[in-house]
Amino acid sequence: TQVDKGVDFANYFCTYGYLYHQKEMLSDRVRMDAYFHAVSRNKHHFRGKAVLDVGTGSGILAIWCAQAGARKVYAVEATKMADHARDLARENGVEDIVEVIEGSVEDVTLPEKVDVIISEWMGYFLLRESMFDSVICARDRWLKPDGVMYPSHARMWLAPIRSGITDQKMEDLNCAMNDWHSFVDETEVHYGVNMSVLTKAYREEHEKYYLKTSLWCNLDPNQIIGTPALIKDIDCLQATVDEIRTITAQLMLPIHADRSRISAYAGWFDVQFKGCGQNPAKDEVELTTAPDADGGTHWGQQVFLVNPPIRVNEGDKVLVSFKMSRAKQYHRLMDIELISELELSSGKRLPPITTRVSIE
Amino acid sequence: TQVDKGVDFANYFCTYGYLYHQKEMLSDRVRMDAYFHAVSRNKHHFRGKAVLDVGTGSGILAIWCAQAGARKVYAVEATKMADHARDLARENGVEDIVEVIEGSVEDVTLPEKVDVIISEWMGYFLLRESMFDSVICARDRWLKPDGVMYPSHARMWLAPIRSGITDQKMEDLNCAMNDWHSFVDETEVHYGVNMSVLTKAYREEHEKYYLKTSLWCNLDPNQIIGTPALIKDIDCLQATVDEIRTITAQLMLPIHADRSRISAYAGWFDVQFKGCGQNPAKDEVELTTAPDADGGTHWGQQVFLVNPPIRVNEGDKVLVSFKMSRAKQYHRLMDIELISELELSSGKRLPPITTRVSIE
Ligand SMILES: Nc1ncnc2c1ncn2[C@@H]1O[C@H](CSCC[C@H](N)C(=O)O)[C@@H](O)[C@H]1O
Ligand SMILES: Nc1ncnc2c1ncn2[C@@H]1O[C@H](CSCC[C@H](N)C(=O)O)[C@@H](O)[C@H]1O
Repeated sequence: TQVDKGVDFANYFCTYGYLYHQKEMLSDRVRMDAYFHAVSRNKHHFRGKAVLDVGTGSGILAIWCAQAGARKVYAVEATKMADHARDLARENGVEDIVEVIEGSVEDVTLPEKVDVIISEWMGYFLLRESMFDSVICARDRWLKPDGVMYPSHARMWLAPIRSGITDQKMEDLNCAMNDWHSFVDETEVHYGVNMSVLTKAYREEHEKYYLKTSLWCNLDPNQIIGTPALIKDIDCLQATVDEIRTITAQLMLPIHADRSRISAYAGWFDVQFKGCGQNPAKDEVELTTAPDADGGTHWGQQVFLVNPPIRVNEGDKVLVSFKMSRAKQYHRLMDIELISELELSSGKRLPPITTRVSIE
Repeated sequence: TQVDKGVDFANYFCTYGYLYHQKEMLSDRVRMDAYFHAVSRNKHHFRGKAVLDVGTGSGILAIWCAQAGARKVYAVEATKMADHARDLARENGVEDIVEVIEGSVEDVTLPEKVDVIISEWMGYFLLRESMFDSVICARDRWLKPDGVMYPSHARMWLAPIRSGITDQKMEDLNCAMNDWHSFVDETEVHYGVNMSVLTKAYREEHEKYYLKTSLWCNLDPNQIIGTPALIKDIDCLQATVDEIRTITAQLMLPIHADRSRISAYAGWFDVQFKGCGQNPAKDEVELTTAPDADGGTHWGQQVFLVNPPIRVNEGDKVLVSFKMSRAKQYHRLMDIELISELELSSGKRLPPITTRVSIE
């Protein structure tokens, strides 16, 4: 179901109208390097060509495309950030090339089809925000048959991790419940109203908050205790909204840490700029958000707590049945179900453990 | 203009559907004591009567009214918190009296008019959230001609304060701008794009954020450096939405601290439960959110920074022209303009200083 535009603005678009938020993305050196190198090292894709930048924000990608020799760049931005993009293009001498259009890319009309669609549409764990829907819509409408997508491919990954965070969140939950029980007692004493009927709902609300909502983390690679598994491989030229609405995968994660615990699963993504079959990149670039000792990106990784943690040893395998679908209430948020079956090195299989989390 | 219901839910109502948020209000002992005493010490207003609780939330006020002897309490709540209110009423033995109705009070139909309308509608600085509009609507529709409002009166106050916070926010702004300038330099060096055209807009955005957005504080009374002035006195039985849409006042604030500075103005409110002319309270109760050494309420006070601070001495007076109106974009937020003219004890008047802040 289509979400109301006013609600979508209040819930999603409005933060992108702030320079504070655009700067956060512009300050992500790993992100910036990847797109900058992808464009500047593959000028053959841009020289004399028409480009569409979906969600131009500050206009940075559009300006790079112009500087790489594009004939025309249509830079579409839904928020008033479009005004700033226009100023930036002008002050950087590319206003004859970059045409900033304020509006949703679903609604705009371009004077021509384009050779390249460039967009930085990735949200946490790739698909949070569901902006790729807008890119697919733009592709189907405006990309020439032999056109190229920037990025061309995207992958989602899952790995088991160790972390103190699960114990910490359990402790936070216990504190919240202790506080609730004191509150119930005091409310009865001082105000003659017994609130205990609300305990179950209060607990559920706080379990959801502490244990069943994914966390943003910038993990250290040494927290990964098993081989990451590929959940989904997306070809940006072919993908349909239907195929990304629900993502399912059967994964096998070999454990390499001995006498450890799976405290959580980490999810992240990478994208590649490979061009396309008939028109490949000359210099392939990859942008990864995997755990990195040098600090990572503003995306971090998404962490899905496993409660209680699963004891594992080197040589064990965990079979994970993964399912991610859009939240009923709002298509830009995600619900995830992970069913973990531990297969010990002896071959014995333990009963499945179901974990449900939301990406809020 | 009417705000879209979906947008109003996303921006306003949704947090009230969480027990976490309702508990925060239920844990405010000053708030709870005031309403509890107002009702339980004035049972004559409730015994055998029909009551409407506008925005029942958890149902607490409705249950107190039932316990005070009401014949019937219509407890209207816009969010799914209504389900919890229903459970609470039942578990506290008043389900025959308290009828919980889920919906906006503007939309519901009651089987009868009521003798009392009770509501805890006050937002920061009284009118943030503009929930009093809903209470006025309910009053005009459902209160009997000789009915009583709980609370009966409300007042808004302003006082000059000293605080380190203005200097701190100026420092934060300077840091943000230094960081921006480094970012502009690095972006040019690494990515060949000059972002300096955005400096003015970035500064304005951050001035707005650091200096021109009201702050929540729980002030110490000794920060007040002059006599608080009454901005507005509201009779809840007579008030109209028109009279509260824009609040203006000409205030005179005598300074009692010597060799000090007005770093900011503090705004707060109080409400009284006095009943009405023909049917007064027997035991008048007041709920105040003025700065209090014992800790105050969850409302705190709203602080409007004066930048740069105004030097004052004992015996000086500051004449303040106060104006508060609803934000164009959203009626539940406020824009405030304060024009301060310092009148020295010598009689000399300094030029006016205009301060504009938003309550977000
Ligand atoms: N359907 C849509 N139409 C137009 N703009 C959209 C959109 N969906 C998202 N956006 C915009 O896309 C941007 C994504 S953030 C990326 C900004 C910029 N291209 C950069 O790489 O720095 C936001 O500014 C958001 O407002
Ligand atoms: N127009 C309206 N109709 C119905 N409920 C409303 C409303 N405007 C606000 N509310 C509800 O009013 C409540 C205000 S908070 C007060 C809750 C409770 N009466 C207590 O005193 O603890 C919220 O739960 C909010 O959802």
